Amino acid sequence: MPPRLLPTPLQSPLRRLRVNAGEQLEILDQTLLPWHKEWRRVTTLADAEHAIIAMQVRGAPLIGIIAAYGVALGLQESDASDNALNAISARLAATRPTAVNLGWALSVICERLRPIPVGQRVAAAWLEADAIAEEDARNNQLIGANGLKLLQYIAASHPPRTLQVMTHCNAGWLATARHGTALAPVYAARQAGLPVHVWVSETRPRNQGLLTAWELQEAGVPHTLIADNAAGLLILQGRVDAVIVGADRVAANGDVANKIGTCLKALAAAHQCLPFYVAAPFSTLDFNAATGDDIPIETRNDDELRLVTGVDNHNQADCLRQIAEGHSVYNPAFDITPAALVTGIITELGVSAASEPALARLRESEDR
Amino acid sequence: MPPRLLPTPLQSPLRRLRVNAGEQLEILDQTLLPWHKEWRRVTTLADAEHAIIAMQVRGAPLIGIIAAYGVALGLQESDASDNALNAISARLAATRPTAVNLGWALSVICERLRPIPVGQRVAAAWLEADAIAEEDARNNQLIGANGLKLLQYIAASHPPRTLQVMTHCNAGWLATARHGTALAPVYAARQAGLPVHVWVSETRPRNQGLLTAWELQEAGVPHTLIADNAAGLLILQGRVDAVIVGADRVAANGDVANKIGTCLKALAAAHQCLPFYVAAPFSTLDFNAATGDDIPIETRNDDELRLVTGVDNHNQADCLRQIAEGHSVYNPAFDITPAALVTGIITELGVSAASEPALARLRESEDR
Repeated sequence: MPPRLLPTPLQSPLRRLRVNAGEQLEILDQTLLPWHKEWRRVTTLADAEHAIIAMQVRGAPLIGIIAAYGVALGLQESDASDNALNAISARLAATRPTAVNLGWALSVICERLRPIPVGQRVAAAWLEADAIAEEDARNNQLIGANGLKLLQYIAASHPPRTLQVMTHCNAGWLATARHGTALAPVYAARQAGLPVHVWVSETRPRNQGLLTAWELQEAGVPHTLIADNAAGLLILQGRVDAVIVGADRVAANGDVANKIGTCLKALAAAHQCLPFYVAAPFSTLDFNAATGDDIPIETRNDDELRLVTGVDNHNQADCLRQIAEGHSVYNPAFDITPAALVTGIITELGVSAASEPALARLRESEDR
Repeated sequence: MPPRLLPTPLQSPLRRLRVNAGEQLEILDQTLLPWHKEWRRVTTLADAEHAIIAMQVRGAPLIGIIAAYGVALGLQESDASDNALNAISARLAATRPTAVNLGWALSVICERLRPIPVGQRVAAAWLEADAIAEEDARNNQLIGANGLKLLQYIAASHPPRTLQVMTHCNAGWLATARHGTALAPVYAARQAGLPVHVWVSETRPRNQGLLTAWELQEAGVPHTLIADNAAGLLILQGRVDAVIVGADRVAANGDVANKIGTCLKALAAAHQCLPFYVAAPFSTLDFNAATGDDIPIETRNDDELRLVTGVDNHNQADCLRQIAEGHSVYNPAFDITPAALVTGIITELGVSAASEPALARLRESEDR
């Protein structure tokens, strides 16, 4: 049976609407997935801020895109002056600290809008935000193609069998404009007829692994859901061929900030001499952060950990419990994977080693 | 303020009852903790089997103890013949595959009962089960004392500040007859006035970290709850001084089977050159398992992973969701930490390196 092809065009977590009152945006509310597929209107700057903070949209590239649209929405409800532009950008920049794509998208759109006369800025902002989204979609495709070559190489070094890929969190199309980052090579492999199976980590405390499982199911990619804790056993038992994750920020030396739990998978992969790849657009590289120590780590609300399930009782309502007050909770949203544990960084420009000289060369190729 | 001393006598997860109908047992139902503290009668062999399978009791040493009492209960409802003893032992041995203490306790009690006349076996079985529980309590104290020396040594190598210990799952008094294994050194440190703070991992999918948090809170030991995924960040940031876990089985070469997720913490500790200790009674060592490959890994029900919480909605009943069918789930309950990642094994006999020669010497000292 030939592989089931991906729907063309691929799905996207955002929709552009043109209505009488002006341009608008709709997002797929990721806090309701995988249980409810609900599109939510984003019609004001406050909506865009809330969507990012509450994680209705998530994933570093998508956060950047929504921030760009947030600028357009903010200008639409202001005098579109330089002061307004600065204030809007500052509000959006403050929503989440770790993903560098947020700051990158805001600086790109602000830079492009500043020379434009105030009266034309709203229309220009929508076009520029569209351009940022389209650029991300193109980057996704290139990341997929570049990652596919790696997967084909890994598959060729094994006896013919299904390639076992492990990922963490969600870096699929839900996290970007179109194909995803970490999942783009998986989707490309599926399209190329390379048999692939994905180990999907639950990704506590926010369970973004369920988004990945949902995406993979929609695309017909075989996958298995595991507790985050099970990743070490699988890797050390030799049941994984490669780990591919996304990134929220990559420092100049190749240290990678990504969803909490990532570095544990990197340690296990390194112990097993397995390839551990980070897939991200070039805009995720932050040359202002010398190392991972310079990347701010977002700490999120205790409630994300306080709500837990007890499995003793299959009456669902009784199963969910709140941890008693009095326990201290620490809930960092990201961790730093040391560059030494990263086999390579897959960008739209190619695959680079996770080292300062290699990333500097990548930057030069981008500047050309 | 002097440290709050542990209640004396320490709490225990089981109670012995003497009622008209014969000897009985009560257990603290750990599937209801930390929300409800409920004692449950265990009056039949089937009750004992169910308590182990449903994880009303858990923790390798406690499983062994309950199995020993299960033999007494089974003999009480049978003709107490050799055949009955064998059948009872076989039923209990089949409840959970990984913890070797189960098989150890069953073989100890059966060996002690076989020479005893059938008519005296029931009474003898209760006494032998009591003896196994009392021996475990003594072992707990010795493990605590041996582990305390290590913690004092580690503390002496730091500037004076609170010692940061990380654990995984629950290996406290709830998992044993009295003081616990991994937590015994922590309780001993607290009693000795050594300031200690414990990082407690949630331990998905069964959340036994909540049992540890509850125990530590009852004993007045400062602690912080984290997602399992956060362990790597904390260790790599240098915010942990030592990791101590329990064990369900230790192979002859020092490979350690313990709760799923353990080996990820061991990998992070090794990367950071941190001590990673395994605390367990000598009965957890299985010299019939040459390496971790010889230890059976229990795979538990998918439901443990299928029930998850969504944190978007603070209406608790709406928060708990069942993952849609159609996703494959893999739910191993234990993993294997390679001996090379284990700094030492703390038993009642002393602290041993996790190597074949060192464990063989420990065995010789036990045989003397």
